[in-house]
Amino acid sequence: MGTCSADLAALLGPNATAIAAADYICNKFSDASFAVDNTYLLFSAYLNFFMQLGFAMLCAGSVRSKNAISVMLTNVLDAAIAGLFYYLFGFAFAFGSPSNGGFICRHNFGLESIPSSSFDYSNFLYHWAFAVSAAGIASGSMAERTQFVAYLIYSSFLTGFVYPVVSHWFWATDGWATAFRVDNGFLFGSGVIDFAGSGVVHMVGGVAGLWGALIEGPRIGRFDSSGRSVALRDHNATLVVLGTFILWFGWYGFNPGSFNKISGFYTSGNHYGQWSAVGRTAVTTTLAGCTSALATLFGKWILTSHWDVTDFCSGLLGGFAAITAGCSVVEPWAAIICGFVAALVLISCNKLAEKVKYDDPLGAAQLHGGCGAWGVIFTALFASEKYVREVYPSRPVRYGLFMGGGGRLLAAHIIQILVIVGWVSATMGTLFYFLHKFGHLRVSADDEMADMDLTRQGRLAYVDHDEDESQKQGFK
Amino acid sequence: MGTCSADLAALLGPNATAIAAADYICNKFSDASFAVDNTYLLFSAYLNFFMQLGFAMLCAGSVRSKNAISVMLTNVLDAAIAGLFYYLFGFAFAFGSPSNGGFICRHNFGLESIPSSSFDYSNFLYHWAFAVSAAGIASGSMAERTQFVAYLIYSSFLTGFVYPVVSHWFWATDGWATAFRVDNGFLFGSGVIDFAGSGVVHMVGGVAGLWGALIEGPRIGRFDSSGRSVALRDHNATLVVLGTFILWFGWYGFNPGSFNKISGFYTSGNHYGQWSAVGRTAVTTTLAGCTSALATLFGKWILTSHWDVTDFCSGLLGGFAAITAGCSVVEPWAAIICGFVAALVLISCNKLAEKVKYDDPLGAAQLHGGCGAWGVIFTALFASEKYVREVYPSRPVRYGLFMGGGGRLLAAHIIQILVIVGWVSATMGTLFYFLHKFGHLRVSADDEMADMDLTRQGRLAYVDHDEDESQKQGFK
Amino acid sequence: MGTCSADLAALLGPNATAIAAADYICNKFSDASFAVDNTYLLFSAYLNFFMQLGFAMLCAGSVRSKNAISVMLTNVLDAAIAGLFYYLFGFAFAFGSPSNGGFICRHNFGLESIPSSSFDYSNFLYHWAFAVSAAGIASGSMAERTQFVAYLIYSSFLTGFVYPVVSHWFWATDGWATAFRVDNGFLFGSGVIDFAGSGVVHMVGGVAGLWGALIEGPRIGRFDSSGRSVALRDHNATLVVLGTFILWFGWYGFNPGSFNKISGFYTSGNHYGQWSAVGRTAVTTTLAGCTSALATLFGKWILTSHWDVTDFCSGLLGGFAAITAGCSVVEPWAAIICGFVAALVLISCNKLAEKVKYDDPLGAAQLHGGCGAWGVIFTALFASEKYVREVYPSRPVRYGLFMGGGGRLLAAHIIQILVIVGWVSATMGTLFYFLHKFGHLRVSADDEMADMDLTRQGRLAYVDHDEDESQKQGFK
Repeated sequence: MGTCSADLAALLGPNATAIAAADYICNKFSDASFAVDNTYLLFSAYLNFFMQLGFAMLCAGSVRSKNAISVMLTNVLDAAIAGLFYYLFGFAFAFGSPSNGGFICRHNFGLESIPSSSFDYSNFLYHWAFAVSAAGIASGSMAERTQFVAYLIYSSFLTGFVYPVVSHWFWATDGWATAFRVDNGFLFGSGVIDFAGSGVVHMVGGVAGLWGALIEGPRIGRFDSSGRSVALRDHNATLVVLGTFILWFGWYGFNPGSFNKISGFYTSGNHYGQWSAVGRTAVTTTLAGCTSALATLFGKWILTSHWDVTDFCSGLLGGFAAITAGCSVVEPWAAIICGFVAALVLISCNKLAEKVKYDDPLGAAQLHGGCGAWGVIFTALFASEKYVREVYPSRPVRYGLFMGGGGRLLAAHIIQILVIVGWVSATMGTLFYFLHKFGHLRVSADDEMADMDLTRQGRLAYVDHDEDESQKQGFK
Repeated sequence: MGTCSADLAALLGPNATAIAAADYICNKFSDASFAVDNTYLLFSAYLNFFMQLGFAMLCAGSVRSKNAISVMLTNVLDAAIAGLFYYLFGFAFAFGSPSNGGFICRHNFGLESIPSSSFDYSNFLYHWAFAVSAAGIASGSMAERTQFVAYLIYSSFLTGFVYPVVSHWFWATDGWATAFRVDNGFLFGSGVIDFAGSGVVHMVGGVAGLWGALIEGPRIGRFDSSGRSVALRDHNATLVVLGTFILWFGWYGFNPGSFNKISGFYTSGNHYGQWSAVGRTAVTTTLAGCTSALATLFGKWILTSHWDVTDFCSGLLGGFAAITAGCSVVEPWAAIICGFVAALVLISCNKLAEKVKYDDPLGAAQLHGGCGAWGVIFTALFASEKYVREVYPSRPVRYGLFMGGGGRLLAAHIIQILVIVGWVSATMGTLFYFLHKFGHLRVSADDEMADMDLTRQGRLAYVDHDEDESQKQGFK
Repeated sequence: MGTCSADLAALLGPNATAIAAADYICNKFSDASFAVDNTYLLFSAYLNFFMQLGFAMLCAGSVRSKNAISVMLTNVLDAAIAGLFYYLFGFAFAFGSPSNGGFICRHNFGLESIPSSSFDYSNFLYHWAFAVSAAGIASGSMAERTQFVAYLIYSSFLTGFVYPVVSHWFWATDGWATAFRVDNGFLFGSGVIDFAGSGVVHMVGGVAGLWGALIEGPRIGRFDSSGRSVALRDHNATLVVLGTFILWFGWYGFNPGSFNKISGFYTSGNHYGQWSAVGRTAVTTTLAGCTSALATLFGKWILTSHWDVTDFCSGLLGGFAAITAGCSVVEPWAAIICGFVAALVLISCNKLAEKVKYDDPLGAAQLHGGCGAWGVIFTALFASEKYVREVYPSRPVRYGLFMGGGGRLLAAHIIQILVIVGWVSATMGTLFYFLHKFGHLRVSADDEMADMDLTRQGRLAYVDHDEDESQKQGFK
């Protein structure tokens, strides 16, 4: 608010009281901004957190009934574990400036200097919800066959270290690859525009899940002896719709909330300011999701002659995962293109997964990894100069290739994809490998089958509610 | 903010820098207002949108199990289709000023001049959620027997054209029948006070659904061969409660959110301002819903000697639909009257529907159409002069007949009801008629029965979760 | 804002227009604060209200299937009854100043002088949601065996009188035991710091439920003839998770919302203000819940060798109930201690309940009563001087015993526990006693068993969805 005081003091008069008056007034404006910005950010964080219920319901509805309890436990655990580990370590690694060479921070463990002039508690809460999402995505890929102890270990590691480091690189103002950097030294003089985390959150979760699911292998019965794919039907489409809509609702915290502040004019005293950009982000998010949902629904209808609400739901989420990187810097019409291509990417990734016998009960690697990667590329193609100037004002502007901005941003974004895949593979892949090697990753075939038998024979158990078999499941 | 600058400049002194100082300060106040107003409107829009999940769960819980998937698909489709069609056309027809004679606008397709001084992206998002609601209401009436292609067509038409035109008439500042008009030329010099859309949203959805359900006729088995009503039981009361409470939650976006702005004093520097009106609107909404819920519960208990939570739920929603028109301009005690009468209207409409063999699986035409129409009348009876002056400051005040305001508002509101019924009948009724005529409205009796048979024989399918029959349903 | 005008006028100059200019500017700051504070409080109220859906789903999932409908009906009823009774009486008893000796207020029935300089409609709405919570907690304890008429009576009495009086004592600025009092006369010169109601809401609900459940006795079959405990399994863990996460989401309205205002600097023009305290409250809430959830999960695993998602859920809620009193005045690390001990308290209370054959289907008395009481004590031990000064600025500071603040606050808090237990026992205990004496509390054994038999024999009913037995239940 230094600028405010100086500007206003010049107008009010050159004497000492004028400066004091200007300070007084400007301080009160500053207070008002903090109040409204924190209101906006806290409620965005609440919505962002609420997505975890969406993941839990989506997962519960997508697995076989016998595993609904187990998979929900992993989702609720993610939120709680991340609460502790992101508080103790994660936020410090990600945003505890100064950075160690742009790679990792190491201050502010346990939020010790919060609030500071850069961060308030609301920022921590908001970023905690992101960490939870990354872990939640991965747990979907590994549903129905993973040991409980493996969840505990990888969820702590992912939310306390792996994810925070990535978010430091691309989101902290001193991260090595961020578009928020003032200097112009690295990554083709560009830096990466991954506004709300198609790469930072979705790809991290998706790639982590991919390695987990690959290393432990498909569920028993997912591919028959001749290698043909056998659908293990999800058990409850109502829960899928419930989870999907909660995710949609929460995404309005995830994407438009990523501005952190809603006040700030672009042309003072006019109607146009950061609030418009926040609103535009909500609109691009909506349009990309809607388009992708419809395109997936129709695409699958063309392929299978069946209208299926779960196709709609996964298409919707794929569109959201894709628009997340560029949501703040693209035009609404571009969001429609983003969503349309996301549907094609999703359908293709699912086809490919079946071909290579990759079993992901939620399709999370395909959806968050595949559509997330498309979102990173999309942003490099369609980011608009005007919006990039407004949202990332501190740097030399690089914008979308198709918008006349040249190829540097695209080059930077390709690097982002490679780096995320590399880092998550090196850390989480290694972790899963050793968990597997020492027998802590996958449940025994007996356990996996026993449940199944129980279910297949479970008529009495199900019909007599007081003995509902769904209550007896869980991790052992 | 021209007023602010002039007022303040006069106080700060007559010279040029005083004017510049006043401008500077007033611009910053203007920026602060935009930030808080957009925060308020965006989160209201998110809540408003979240109602669609409420509709989906309410519908899924209210139909027979076999149709839960189909009916949810229509609800999610409404949101996505409206996303595209309201973006491309609807918002332009409704608010793309200047108006063609108060009937329809034709500028701003695809949001091309958003943000403007009148509208920001948040306004579009907020109104999109209304369009979705109108379509969602209609799809409830037509559940369990309508072809998928019919949904696609009427949902696009309703959200892209029919609803936007109505909202233009009553809500745009240059609509022919709005109470926001500055001039005094039309509709008994009054204009219509339909604050959040008992008529504009609920009646439009209810009347559209009425025609659809009438033209395709009752579900097979709904009335037996002797014409006696047979209840086709809803399958899941938990989902009904879930959906109803989500709708309640979302209604706090729908009604109090309809102010669009929360800043603006009524007596500057005092505690009393638009924020009080927003809060009062939340209170009247709550009281009307609670009263109607209790009255319906007790009323049905008197009639049937049974306490039924679904009666409570439909009563609640009926009270909300009724208070929606007048929520901002009536006293809290009047909201209690509104809710009580809404319960009587709802019970009567449901009795009437049974008598005339009208089959509406959700009772949507009765609830949204009937209670919505009562809400329009109620407002004309109980609108308070003081509140109308504050909420609709630009016009000569017409207020409630029972509050001493004379009959002009009532006359205008009766016209509103007739015009909405006429317009929706002429457009949606015609559409449904032709869809029916060309065989695209109703599923074949075989399909309708086949499902039913599957359900009746479906024990194994249900008990064995991995083959849950509910997964196999959907549109074909 | 008198201070603002005086301060600013002194700076702008000593003449009359300077005073007018200062007034003008300060009034506009005041307006901006009202707008943002009401936005924050209204959306907090919406979240707070949304918790009632959480209770409904949690209850529905925790009881036997046959009672799901009945228990949901009580939850929805609580919201509606409280809507009317808290509007008519409750708010007046609690906050209709001046107080009668700090015991009860008796002005402002039916919100007649709202909005005033102290309260706006948003305050009413926010406190209504608290009243609903208190009633909702109690209805959990008495699930599965209570007459409908008893619910109607006690819910009205609790939300219209018992709870409002308690909230007056501890929360109104003229209550006899509040830490908001300016004077220093009572309760060891301290007053009670129960920020969001571990005592005022959770203990009131828990103790009321305790008496209800004690007086009507355990459900049939809950303890066998030899007195051994028999688990009556909850029927749906998905609903338990759904309800728990909705409660978590809503708790961000319950706790951080209790500031009522988010604007207000602690150091003007700096980043540190009430918004930081609001954010910190959200963080302490999160950490206490997460810790308690994990500790309960592991604790129960040690005891039973089973990982159970419902343990996680009740642990989470116990942690929230405990942190509610001190959430605004303790450090984040203290919240972790709070949560850890809450888990021990919860497990112990549940053990004790089983030992004394106390049957509480939701464990509500243990969770809200037990962990709530721990929260009251915890606050007296760990409240930080700095935060107490900021959050309760009007009084001589008493803070936590372990933080060097001496024992007066602890003494006051022990008095709070005794007083709440005494008052709720005297009022609600008496009510339940007479309801029981005149045969209006518990359903007949036949009714309780009849349902059970229906369920046990209910296979056909369940499998054929169109005749789903769960629809036929309810109060008779």
